[in-house]
Amino acid sequence: MLPPNVSSADFNRAIAAWKQAVGADWVFTSDEDVALYRDAYSPWWDEPDERKASAAVAPYTVEQVQAVVRTANQYRIPLYAISTGRNLAYGGSAPVYSGSVVLDLKRMNRVLEVSERNAYALVEPGVSYFDLHEHITKQKLDVWVDPPDPGWGSVIGNALDGGGGWTAFPFRDHFGAHCGMEVVLANGEIVRTGMGALGNSKTWQHNRWGYGPWVDGLFRQGNMGVVTKMGFHLMPRPEAMQTATVQGAREEDIIPLLDTMNLLENQLAVNGSTSLFGGMRIPGMPGSGAAMWTLQLPIYGPEKVVRAQMEYCREKFAKVPGATFTEGELFRTPLDEATLNRVRKVSFGVPDLSTFGMLGRNPQNPAPPGGHIGFSPIIPRTGEAVLEYLRFYTSNLQAVSEGGTLRFVGPVFMTNWDRSLVAMIMFPIGRDKVMNAKMRAAFEKWVHLAAERGWAEYRAPAGFQDLCAKTYSYNNHALTRFRETIKDAVDPNGILSPGRYGVWPKHLRKGR
Amino acid sequence: MLPPNVSSADFNRAIAAWKQAVGADWVFTSDEDVALYRDAYSPWWDEPDERKASAAVAPYTVEQVQAVVRTANQYRIPLYAISTGRNLAYGGSAPVYSGSVVLDLKRMNRVLEVSERNAYALVEPGVSYFDLHEHITKQKLDVWVDPPDPGWGSVIGNALDGGGGWTAFPFRDHFGAHCGMEVVLANGEIVRTGMGALGNSKTWQHNRWGYGPWVDGLFRQGNMGVVTKMGFHLMPRPEAMQTATVQGAREEDIIPLLDTMNLLENQLAVNGSTSLFGGMRIPGMPGSGAAMWTLQLPIYGPEKVVRAQMEYCREKFAKVPGATFTEGELFRTPLDEATLNRVRKVSFGVPDLSTFGMLGRNPQNPAPPGGHIGFSPIIPRTGEAVLEYLRFYTSNLQAVSEGGTLRFVGPVFMTNWDRSLVAMIMFPIGRDKVMNAKMRAAFEKWVHLAAERGWAEYRAPAGFQDLCAKTYSYNNHALTRFRETIKDAVDPNGILSPGRYGVWPKHLRKGR
Repeated sequence: MLPPNVSSADFNRAIAAWKQAVGADWVFTSDEDVALYRDAYSPWWDEPDERKASAAVAPYTVEQVQAVVRTANQYRIPLYAISTGRNLAYGGSAPVYSGSVVLDLKRMNRVLEVSERNAYALVEPGVSYFDLHEHITKQKLDVWVDPPDPGWGSVIGNALDGGGGWTAFPFRDHFGAHCGMEVVLANGEIVRTGMGALGNSKTWQHNRWGYGPWVDGLFRQGNMGVVTKMGFHLMPRPEAMQTATVQGAREEDIIPLLDTMNLLENQLAVNGSTSLFGGMRIPGMPGSGAAMWTLQLPIYGPEKVVRAQMEYCREKFAKVPGATFTEGELFRTPLDEATLNRVRKVSFGVPDLSTFGMLGRNPQNPAPPGGHIGFSPIIPRTGEAVLEYLRFYTSNLQAVSEGGTLRFVGPVFMTNWDRSLVAMIMFPIGRDKVMNAKMRAAFEKWVHLAAERGWAEYRAPAGFQDLCAKTYSYNNHALTRFRETIKDAVDPNGILSPGRYGVWPKHLRKGR
Repeated sequence: MLPPNVSSADFNRAIAAWKQAVGADWVFTSDEDVALYRDAYSPWWDEPDERKASAAVAPYTVEQVQAVVRTANQYRIPLYAISTGRNLAYGGSAPVYSGSVVLDLKRMNRVLEVSERNAYALVEPGVSYFDLHEHITKQKLDVWVDPPDPGWGSVIGNALDGGGGWTAFPFRDHFGAHCGMEVVLANGEIVRTGMGALGNSKTWQHNRWGYGPWVDGLFRQGNMGVVTKMGFHLMPRPEAMQTATVQGAREEDIIPLLDTMNLLENQLAVNGSTSLFGGMRIPGMPGSGAAMWTLQLPIYGPEKVVRAQMEYCREKFAKVPGATFTEGELFRTPLDEATLNRVRKVSFGVPDLSTFGMLGRNPQNPAPPGGHIGFSPIIPRTGEAVLEYLRFYTSNLQAVSEGGTLRFVGPVFMTNWDRSLVAMIMFPIGRDKVMNAKMRAAFEKWVHLAAERGWAEYRAPAGFQDLCAKTYSYNNHALTRFRETIKDAVDPNGILSPGRYGVWPKHLRKGR
């Protein structure tokens, strides 16, 4: 397979140059090798529209990244940068623009610095949550990582894709908790952001904003450069953690329940990753029995503070008629092995694969017959919005599911780290092309139906990134056009991850 | 005065078009009117290099802003956007590029929405902290604003300049606490960021990141567009506040003192705006007597939580040999009038001018004979860095101050909202040209001396923004060049605030 609009002569020249730059062993062109970059969760699996790589290059140093990018620029070859390639359910390691060469950064897996005193880490893109956790454990540093469900994912990759984790605010907003970047631009130049732009900076991971316009945001869900180093603020190990469970029996209870939860979260009295179950009876989800709604409110901190916060929460929920409030077990950290094995590890800063493994691909099952993708629109964090969303879901379910022949999981409501909720609907993806086509059509329908009501995605699977981007259409897609203007200026040949999150270079833009 | 490189015929045409757009009363061209935009704190006061406006235009609506910008683009007239014009000590309402026309947004002073349930506000640039506080008070909403010292400043302007306030994390990082923007670009088009890019969005102020590359950072200390609306997350009123004071007697005590403070702040056990005094005896500053170092640690939250946090802090500081720990008065909110009059109002969410008034310009003294500017480099938040900075200051003071003939105030150490310290040196600015020239030379010396050691500014007075930007020189000023590439693409005629924070459009860039 050749990259689009690239002659085989030019492609061979590029391959040769890349072999020169990174070593012949780290340029992959055989069908067998390149197939490893396929997305096991692709809803287009084995169909013509499946997004596939034409080759892959795996540099080991930032200088090699520069060389690879310069060669790509010379021959106008689209690259698709990945970190560990575990962005499963969002496209995995396969490119958004089919025929791109995967720029695989997994070999750049150095933990460059972890400061316990100032609670930060500086890492390369190939560093997984497992790697960073192992480094911290070996060095006996008293700080936590904040893991998402897939512990084998990249710390940088997850942050850049807009992912989140399961411990406390502000650390569980992975992009928000970063501090400083090193980026290789499309022309091969290195930029350091924030205080890193100072030649001999001593505060690159201490102060995030630096001086002047802050460019880091451009690389979030973006394609303006290849991030080769990134700093993250870490949480000092909290002494204790305890979760309150609050339940309400009636539909309308969700309004005061969420208002109370908002008050507690917005003043950080509850600082963990809260969740909301209910409204519909979902098999396997908490909140059975008489309760229609179940909130879970984790609190992290010194033991005496956690107890005081818990007491405060209890008082606040006592004002909600009919609400029941139950304190969970209080855990003191570090957990012993036996305790760790009976809890959800990620809530205690320990990377894991168990939740993720349930859903599909994992090391014991590296090429499962499919997996899942999620449609995850952002809705206001109010009871009214939850009820409206449930009515919306119920009233459209028959039509979208073709009379119930398609099964979705959801909606599941997760609190975001801001003042919003994510209302997620999960779609199983398999190896049955007819069923996959139906699931794709259903996904598209949900996107359009939700957008009509003012709800849209915070993150999307690679194959649907364009579709979702088009719903952000205020003033004739002014934000997308602004991003395109920047894209054309900083990557004039459009070689970096074309199409990622709906941002296409000039020569690939279709009429809107 | 004409704008640079603009003919008087073109300038007159632009003035006529602006009068048409905003009304003749709101285009200011007389010397008397334009003089009101001078910077009372300018270190170049009445000298040829003083930055001055050529005219001012004050639109009332976003459509008028669009019209003003389009006309400026047509005639290539540089604009300098200000909010309330109170960016005193950082350039006030005077432009960075002399001869620019001030785009004065003070008439756009609408509080568009305040949500108590979801704790946010949406405001226009002319809304001051006083305005927003008054709106909230009148509506009896139970949320706080986070005021900086000058309460008459713009909520948007302060955030865009990188300012901070005096209540709790994360609200006191004003740019960091924003959520969603509306921006008029150089071509007159309106962009809404984050979830606002969805036509009928319901979550513009609920979720900050939205979908795809995040562009908001470009408008921080920037000149890529004119911000016309901006959302901010607000803090639900905390029930109580109490400040701990910790002191240490010996120079080396600062190391464990700061390590302990870091641990407490980084896990949000202390969430207020901490400060550090000492190292040198500064008249009028706390920390007299035997103490060399004084830390102040404010804690906000429910009363029982504040008490628990305080107890936890006491335990942690008990491990620092020789440290004394004193609990301050516990304040329950809302404060009664008598209490409010004896405390620092800004620490309780009430905008004020008293600290600022001490330093110069205020409503009773609108045109003082000068004021102050600050040199505020970022240093690591460690005791070693504080001691190194003090040695640096002491060993260079004689030379920089011309044998002690120049008096500086400082250094004063303020904790930033990240993991850094601001080490501020204040310069009095007056009406004596010889003394002002010496102060400018001294400022320049401090900038260069600090940069040699890896310390540089997070924010700078207008006249020194270029100087400070040049210290961020990693890889031949790669970050500045990246910003310039973006600037040239989104504002090809370079009309928006040329030179702000060192970003110049192509036709005004000098050789580096």
